[in-house]
Amino acid sequence: MDKLTLHEDPRSGNCYKIRLAAALLGLPLERRIYDIMQGETRTEEFLAKVNSNGRIPVLQVGDRFLPESNAACFYLAEGTRLVPEDRFQRADMLRWMFFEQYNHEPNIATLRFWLYFIGEAYLSEPQRMQIPGKRMAGEAALELMDKHLATRDWFVGDSVSLADIALYAYTHVAEAGGFALADHAHVCAWLDRVGELPGYVPMD
Amino acid sequence: MDKLTLHEDPRSGNCYKIRLAAALLGLPLERRIYDIMQGETRTEEFLAKVNSNGRIPVLQVGDRFLPESNAACFYLAEGTRLVPEDRFQRADMLRWMFFEQYNHEPNIATLRFWLYFIGEAYLSEPQRMQIPGKRMAGEAALELMDKHLATRDWFVGDSVSLADIALYAYTHVAEAGGFALADHAHVCAWLDRVGELPGYVPMD
Repeated sequence: MDKLTLHEDPRSGNCYKIRLAAALLGLPLERRIYDIMQGETRTEEFLAKVNSNGRIPVLQVGDRFLPESNAACFYLAEGTRLVPEDRFQRADMLRWMFFEQYNHEPNIATLRFWLYFIGEAYLSEPQRMQIPGKRMAGEAALELMDKHLATRDWFVGDSVSLADIALYAYTHVAEAGGFALADHAHVCAWLDRVGELPGYVPMD
Repeated sequence: MDKLTLHEDPRSGNCYKIRLAAALLGLPLERRIYDIMQGETRTEEFLAKVNSNGRIPVLQVGDRFLPESNAACFYLAEGTRLVPEDRFQRADMLRWMFFEQYNHEPNIATLRFWLYFIGEAYLSEPQRMQIPGKRMAGEAALELMDKHLATRDWFVGDSVSLADIALYAYTHVAEAGGFALADHAHVCAWLDRVGELPGYVPMD
């Protein structure tokens, strides 16, 4: 495999997913740190060379650039034990990763960013008006996860997959967005299971 | 392959993606229609049996259920010409599919749903306040696509892939959400290319 470099902000759960997947797989990963609060991913150079979408993470593979956290995880893990061998299960893993980006991240990660990193007093009026909706949708995502985990240890099949890694990243820090994890016992037990995986690395 | 049934609302671009992928691949697909405006995907039976997330599309494969449009497309197309053989390109295809669900659909599809199917007069105040933000983010997504397509015919590699199908679904009806497609010439040319693919089926 070509040399791997992660363009990232260590506070981002999306970036952490890639670090965690690489660590579980024992893949070396160089890190290039940006401060998103200072607009360092919106510079002309970044937009031209790294990601025209102005966002991190981006996984650099040799001289090619791969944006989108879950696509980068898929690149690293395809053909390993983190991606199910069964065709339906492999698609079902992606199902949870799309759920994560659509139903989970825009609510749970966004409230963490707004309330913990920006601060409620500094939000715009349209942002403030979205808080109740994002709170409800984030709670619904956690509740759906909790029900799913009531009868199983991992999201897909009988072992850890990228679905677990993608969902772990922002769930395990959801309290910074005002979500009460203790209300979701099966989620808490699953978080512990992920944290005990050989090779696990914490978020910075 | 087990019998395939698509649980869908024909007005949904997410559902159409799966129909289009199946049509291009010549896969037979039974259709089970729901009216999302009447809450038909929120019934107890639907939540218990089809999708606990209360959303369509869901691809039924035999007696198993696969939610999330892009995961369903991946299930149908893995190993076919709609998924690149090269590992990096395959991940890059997923990159555009995650972009679609994160940057494109929540803006372009949501404005279509709000303005065309619900009607601006019937929106809640928090919804109304999100229109300018979604308008700007949707325009940015179209602009990014237009730049990418300025030097290439398809989103990934040299031929059509699921990245094109995923992005086509809500782009080609974006004008119902108030977006001016004529401002994006490369996008328009690409829409025509998709529409001319052998086996192409239109949205209902």
